[in-house]
Amino acid sequence: MQAARLHEYTEDMSEALSIDEVDAPQPTRSDHVVVDVQGAGWCQTDNHIIEGMWTDYVEQDLPMTLGHENAGTVVGVGEEVTTVSEGDRVICHPVLPCGKCRPCRLGEDMHCENLSFPGLTTDGGFAERLLTSERSVIPLPDGVDPVDIAPHADAGITAYHAVKKAVSQLVPGDYAVVVGVGGLGHIGLQCLDAMSAAQLIALDVKEEARELATELGADYTLDPENDDVPAEIDAITDGALATQVVDFVGRDPTLALAPDIVRGTGEHHVVGYGGHVHEPAQTLVNGEFSYVGTLVGQYTELQELMALVAQGDVDLHTSRYGLDDVNEVAERLEHGEIEGRAVIMPQE
Amino acid sequence: MQAARLHEYTEDMSEALSIDEVDAPQPTRSDHVVVDVQGAGWCQTDNHIIEGMWTDYVEQDLPMTLGHENAGTVVGVGEEVTTVSEGDRVICHPVLPCGKCRPCRLGEDMHCENLSFPGLTTDGGFAERLLTSERSVIPLPDGVDPVDIAPHADAGITAYHAVKKAVSQLVPGDYAVVVGVGGLGHIGLQCLDAMSAAQLIALDVKEEARELATELGADYTLDPENDDVPAEIDAITDGALATQVVDFVGRDPTLALAPDIVRGTGEHHVVGYGGHVHEPAQTLVNGEFSYVGTLVGQYTELQELMALVAQGDVDLHTSRYGLDDVNEVAERLEHGEIEGRAVIMPQE
Amino acid sequence: MQAARLHEYTEDMSEALSIDEVDAPQPTRSDHVVVDVQGAGWCQTDNHIIEGMWTDYVEQDLPMTLGHENAGTVVGVGEEVTTVSEGDRVICHPVLPCGKCRPCRLGEDMHCENLSFPGLTTDGGFAERLLTSERSVIPLPDGVDPVDIAPHADAGITAYHAVKKAVSQLVPGDYAVVVGVGGLGHIGLQCLDAMSAAQLIALDVKEEARELATELGADYTLDPENDDVPAEIDAITDGALATQVVDFVGRDPTLALAPDIVRGTGEHHVVGYGGHVHEPAQTLVNGEFSYVGTLVGQYTELQELMALVAQGDVDLHTSRYGLDDVNEVAERLEHGEIEGRAVIMPQE
Amino acid sequence: MQAARLHEYTEDMSEALSIDEVDAPQPTRSDHVVVDVQGAGWCQTDNHIIEGMWTDYVEQDLPMTLGHENAGTVVGVGEEVTTVSEGDRVICHPVLPCGKCRPCRLGEDMHCENLSFPGLTTDGGFAERLLTSERSVIPLPDGVDPVDIAPHADAGITAYHAVKKAVSQLVPGDYAVVVGVGGLGHIGLQCLDAMSAAQLIALDVKEEARELATELGADYTLDPENDDVPAEIDAITDGALATQVVDFVGRDPTLALAPDIVRGTGEHHVVGYGGHVHEPAQTLVNGEFSYVGTLVGQYTELQELMALVAQGDVDLHTSRYGLDDVNEVAERLEHGEIEGRAVIMPQE
Repeated sequence: MQAARLHEYTEDMSEALSIDEVDAPQPTRSDHVVVDVQGAGWCQTDNHIIEGMWTDYVEQDLPMTLGHENAGTVVGVGEEVTTVSEGDRVICHPVLPCGKCRPCRLGEDMHCENLSFPGLTTDGGFAERLLTSERSVIPLPDGVDPVDIAPHADAGITAYHAVKKAVSQLVPGDYAVVVGVGGLGHIGLQCLDAMSAAQLIALDVKEEARELATELGADYTLDPENDDVPAEIDAITDGALATQVVDFVGRDPTLALAPDIVRGTGEHHVVGYGGHVHEPAQTLVNGEFSYVGTLVGQYTELQELMALVAQGDVDLHTSRYGLDDVNEVAERLEHGEIEGRAVIMPQE
Repeated sequence: MQAARLHEYTEDMSEALSIDEVDAPQPTRSDHVVVDVQGAGWCQTDNHIIEGMWTDYVEQDLPMTLGHENAGTVVGVGEEVTTVSEGDRVICHPVLPCGKCRPCRLGEDMHCENLSFPGLTTDGGFAERLLTSERSVIPLPDGVDPVDIAPHADAGITAYHAVKKAVSQLVPGDYAVVVGVGGLGHIGLQCLDAMSAAQLIALDVKEEARELATELGADYTLDPENDDVPAEIDAITDGALATQVVDFVGRDPTLALAPDIVRGTGEHHVVGYGGHVHEPAQTLVNGEFSYVGTLVGQYTELQELMALVAQGDVDLHTSRYGLDDVNEVAERLEHGEIEGRAVIMPQE
Repeated sequence: MQAARLHEYTEDMSEALSIDEVDAPQPTRSDHVVVDVQGAGWCQTDNHIIEGMWTDYVEQDLPMTLGHENAGTVVGVGEEVTTVSEGDRVICHPVLPCGKCRPCRLGEDMHCENLSFPGLTTDGGFAERLLTSERSVIPLPDGVDPVDIAPHADAGITAYHAVKKAVSQLVPGDYAVVVGVGGLGHIGLQCLDAMSAAQLIALDVKEEARELATELGADYTLDPENDDVPAEIDAITDGALATQVVDFVGRDPTLALAPDIVRGTGEHHVVGYGGHVHEPAQTLVNGEFSYVGTLVGQYTELQELMALVAQGDVDLHTSRYGLDDVNEVAERLEHGEIEGRAVIMPQE
Repeated sequence: MQAARLHEYTEDMSEALSIDEVDAPQPTRSDHVVVDVQGAGWCQTDNHIIEGMWTDYVEQDLPMTLGHENAGTVVGVGEEVTTVSEGDRVICHPVLPCGKCRPCRLGEDMHCENLSFPGLTTDGGFAERLLTSERSVIPLPDGVDPVDIAPHADAGITAYHAVKKAVSQLVPGDYAVVVGVGGLGHIGLQCLDAMSAAQLIALDVKEEARELATELGADYTLDPENDDVPAEIDAITDGALATQVVDFVGRDPTLALAPDIVRGTGEHHVVGYGGHVHEPAQTLVNGEFSYVGTLVGQYTELQELMALVAQGDVDLHTSRYGLDDVNEVAERLEHGEIEGRAVIMPQE
């Protein structure tokens, strides 16, 4: 089968991946599931992997097939698989948890002690077929197209996971700030709107993004390049500031907003990355706020997100590409030229 | 009456405060309470105030009487005070909350919108008498000496507040790390021991502090100057790392421990200050941990701490000084030469 | 001034209260607030008080003015009141908490150790003027008419309080059941819809109530007199059952639904009363569900409800009556003939 | 092999079970584990099963081997088992969860949609060998004897599960009540003592049980037959009442204590069963308390309990019997004549 693989870390996105012919995976364990990949979302993290930015955090054996936002149709199952069968359309949680360690038993799939992460530590979904496991697949609601929702497998669950933490601390009358209304942010905003009655303030430097935010439920939008964000938030909230900030950007200037816009006992959720948190301890103490790291999400949270999708609470903006277009997608994302989330369709 | 007052910010602790003759306060509001100060703990924050380190965070009109860890005897009450009367021995919560704003109504006294903070923003307790309010005093259990427990008014409540957050996330089999077994840390350690069944690991550069930690309930102690702390914690916890870290030091090297010693979904509580949090956002994301700022504590938490004191779960190590000794205390603390918490006794 | 007062407990609603001439209240404490009552909601509890059903639970000195759902205009304030002044339009939290006891300091106004409850234990708002306190009044958002929202002072806050507990346990994909879409239930349903993304199932014996439920956000409605409720809920939820039930009726048959419709670890919130919980302990154990009593709500929750009202998330269905109509209202409520919540207007 | 099996429901414990010769189980699924049963605790629930008291709640095919508190040594494993191997000593969580359904993925093993429960719905551990699964076994800490700790597999985890819920609501200064200091209660009391700083009040009609309670950490003991329990608890708590009650008895009189001894927002945990909850809804409303059903516990909670055992926080009082003694044990338990928890040793 064909697969888009990374052979060498590079800054040059125009020749990031090569389309190789490789063996199609087979189920070799009782819980294995093999999926024909219909949609595989391209993520900012794919660019980061190509640049070598994850080598300090995980082990990667190159060449490796990228792609960690996958959805498609089951074409093979291990002998003890009972919850899906051939022909079922599924979305794939991005990791393969062992299901037996203590974090798995607590539902904390991302903290599995024996985790593998297709597209990050093993072969992923920019390929005709993906090897995954019964523990990682969720049958799609009727009428849901795998290509349309593939990005929920990582972008969606990551946004949902952060928002769910934020929602647990929000009450009516509170303000929540969404920083960045891009691939993750536009999902996060819709989840906040569906799951809480808080007032929502969205920040984005692009006008179209702010317009989209308003359509998707933001009560206020701000442009960090032209608005004095702390002053505006102080005014909007009548001095109360934001109870929760969900930062889908994670660059130095967005991370530095917390002391000025998060109220006491509030939280700044760090979802996007690339920048640094750099604050005096005294600032965290005096403001009694937190920086909360957040990593993808649980299998059960992907189920919950699929429920939101099924009941029409979350729309996804996507654009579609063939497997041969991967490097073009990588380059365009690098230059901020992708409309909505790009989805690769390896079957086309 | 006599009061130890700050006239000018200075790095020279030997002439930090001067003993002035000032008018004794009187109750002028229906809820005012005037207390003869029997004990007033000296806090690292007093040194920080003298150095001018709080001028960026709060307004201070000099000259100002310092002292925010106060206990003593009620000698005057406003006309609608019902819960204490003259002669009652009390400990004073460090702030005067308005009791009417939303944070007050939620019990979040430290986030009162109209808060005053004697010893930080108005006259404090290094004086014969202190003006406080019915909302800020807690009657002492029988047999408890105000001088012995005065430091609980700030050191104690601050340690307790941070530990209470940590305890809510600890289950048997988990590990909690206490960084710094000094004035706050030795209280925090005892609270952790009384309130949870977690295994406790205490870090301190001083041998006596580590010995004290063992006496007070630490299961393991480490010396950050000679032990490889991340490696030791990895070994002690069999790779599981710590669920909760309570950092009573808050300097650069202690804040930098989090990525290596806090497990996924865990928290590093920032209690001490002086250093900076400086980490890539990617590190918080990959490890899914949080830096949690923590500021003093609630009135009801001081009640809870008094319950721990009354049932013998928390001992306080103090040394006693007269009002004239304030600058000597400031200097000795600067050089790490105070045994236990220093308590000023303005009545002696 | 005129006041509608209860002189004797009776089952005969046609002569329940008499309109007496009494002295208008004056502020005698520094925090007192006197309100011209513009709207005072009539509650099922008023009928229960008239029948003597609360004599086992609280002390009542007759004659007593009823009315515990009050809103109006401030006409007098004690000398230390700072948060409202004459002319302000306010809604009144139903109780006067002391603000000093531990439950008050925790925000648990309903569990104040020194609580008084106008209309239940002291004179209430079926009168031209009401004596209340600064701790109990919330200024109304601009453009909100006291008559329109008076029932939120008790019906609203009680529904909101129960729903807020339920919402904290609901995730997308879960099902919540609202039992009874009357005075409280129609508010609770709207709060559930605004604050969660759960699927909502509403039960009511009246067709108009079920139609209203559908308008207000119910995804499913059931008629307990004609539908097999457990079977229908089993079918709707595909066997998963309800995570949360909020029972605004509280009669024997509604309380008995829990074992059949609440899933493991779920909760049946008891808001309405009149019937009994009667179940084998083994049933609670085997199903691992809870019966959760719920009583009015906190001052801060009434603030949160006012935020929902201000942003248009909660509409209230009311009908208006003069002070002279109180017994007619009592009788009509007894026969289920009140459209929406009845509001008495003592100023008209 | 030999197994103690129930052929017919009966009230006559003297001939409850018969010792049959049956085939020893073999692993037939990739995750199966076969255990040589060294210890199998006898539970009050075994008597209830024999009497037919569970037929309304679960399906049972007789004859069936009883015994759901099992510990022993692994003697056979399925081909994909990785976490234990032959020769490992293990304690067995009482149920076999599927590991794939949503409750399993949330860690809620007891609410597995495909659960089997050896000793209740399939063959249990009053036999030389038990068929269980990798998802159900926990390796024992070094030096821990399976016979000594077998009852933790159900009595222990059930007590721990209820106590963990209670502990989450307890702060220093609060009071918790343990009703019944028998097989479960004496474990629950020790867990409360280790995991919280609350004051503990233990109730038991037997003097030896009250003495044991005092040894194990109770601050107060009461005899429900001779003490006026509500009055005593009111006096001990100075009117504040208990925040949490853990009822290990679950008979009518203990369940009826809640309105008088549980404070507002508090909880009465229903662990034991046999009696009925019977209260007016108005009582739950007025007191704002809950009846919380509780059922066994999670796999991860059994891990946590094993951590408590390993660190010496929980001692278990047991007496030992052979497989032939099962009916004698059943009879003696019926008459309250078992000292500590009875453990059957099928290997002896």
